[in-house]
Parts: sequence; C-alpha cells; structure tokens
Amino acid sequence: MSSDVLLSLSQKALHLIQEDADKIEKLIEVQMENLTTRQCPLYEEVLDTQMYGLSREIDFAIRAELISESSGKQIMIKLERNLAQLYEALEQNKK
Amino acid sequence: MSSDVLLSLSQKALHLIQEDADKIEKLIEVQMENLTTRQCPLYEEVLDTQMYGLSREIDFAIRAELISESSGKQIMIKLERNLAQLYEALEQNKK
Repeated sequence: MSSDVLLSLSQKALHLIQEDADKIEKLIEVQMENLTTRQCPLYEEVLDTQMYGLSREIDFAIRAELISESSGKQIMIKLERNLAQLYEALEQNKK
Repeated sequence: MSSDVLLSLSQKALHLIQEDADKIEKLIEVQMENLTTRQCPLYEEVLDTQMYGLSREIDFAIRAELISESSGKQIMIKLERNLAQLYEALEQNKK
C-alpha cells in the first residue's frame, strides 16, 4: 500500500521533470531550425536560466528521494548534449 | 498507512525547501552585517540566482502536490521582504 503511493509520487515527479525538460528541448529545436533567420541574442540567456531551473528541480527531487540520481543525471546529460550541438551550430553559422 | 508515507514525504520536501530558504536568509544576513565593509558586486547576482532556484524548487513541490501553494508562497514572501530590506539598506548606504 505505502510503496504504491511512493511509486506513484515518484512517477509523478519524474513526469513533471520530463515535461520541463521537453520544454527546453523544444526551445533548442526551434533555435536549431532558425539558425539563419531569427537569432535572438536573449536565447542563450533564456536557455541557461531554464537549464539552471531544471537542475534545481532535479536536485530537489533526488534529495527528496523521489527520483534516482541516475535518472536525474540522464535527463540533464541529454539536454546538455543537445545544447552543445546548438552552440556549435551557432558558432559554425557565424563563420 | 499510505497517508503516513505521503505525510512524511511532504514534511521532508518542506524541510528541504526550508533548508534552502535558510541558506538564502543567511546570505542576506551576512550582507546586512557587512553593509559598509565588504560590498561584493556579485552579491545581488548570487541572491537573484538563488531566489530563482528556490522558486523553481517550490513550484515543483507544489505541482507534485508535496507542499501546499500557501506554504510555498509564505516562504518566498518572507525572503522577498528581507531581500527588499537589504536592497533598501544598500541604497541608503550609497547616499
């Protein structure tokens, strides 16, 4: 009984985190698609802020023992990789 | 049984949030005590970042239904008041 509640809370926490991660993913995608047309100088700032916010959420969920450290890290690593690709593409585009 | 687990998780979440709020409180206090001696220009930036991080934690805990909206808001309002006092004192000190 009690482990059911814990499981459903953990799933909910992970779901909420994944939702926020997906929003960042979408921001990265949009900017990737608009490399040449609409480069907003605030984009980098917004993405950095969102990434920090998500990292705080994940850190909190790990400390509250709602999600595992590894699943939290996986989400961050995936986003960081995509972000690095975006920055690389932006750099290439400048040349 | 299941509501016990939920209660203890909620208490844990609130405790973690309060811990982080206390850290910001401490940052504000230290700066208040050192108004004339050590004014670090990065202090404001650090406090803003920490406040944003905490707000994301609280928002997440509310969405995960671990804490109530009102207890989350109370913590933020208290800190915002103290922060406003600090900024006012800093402003007075400049004159």
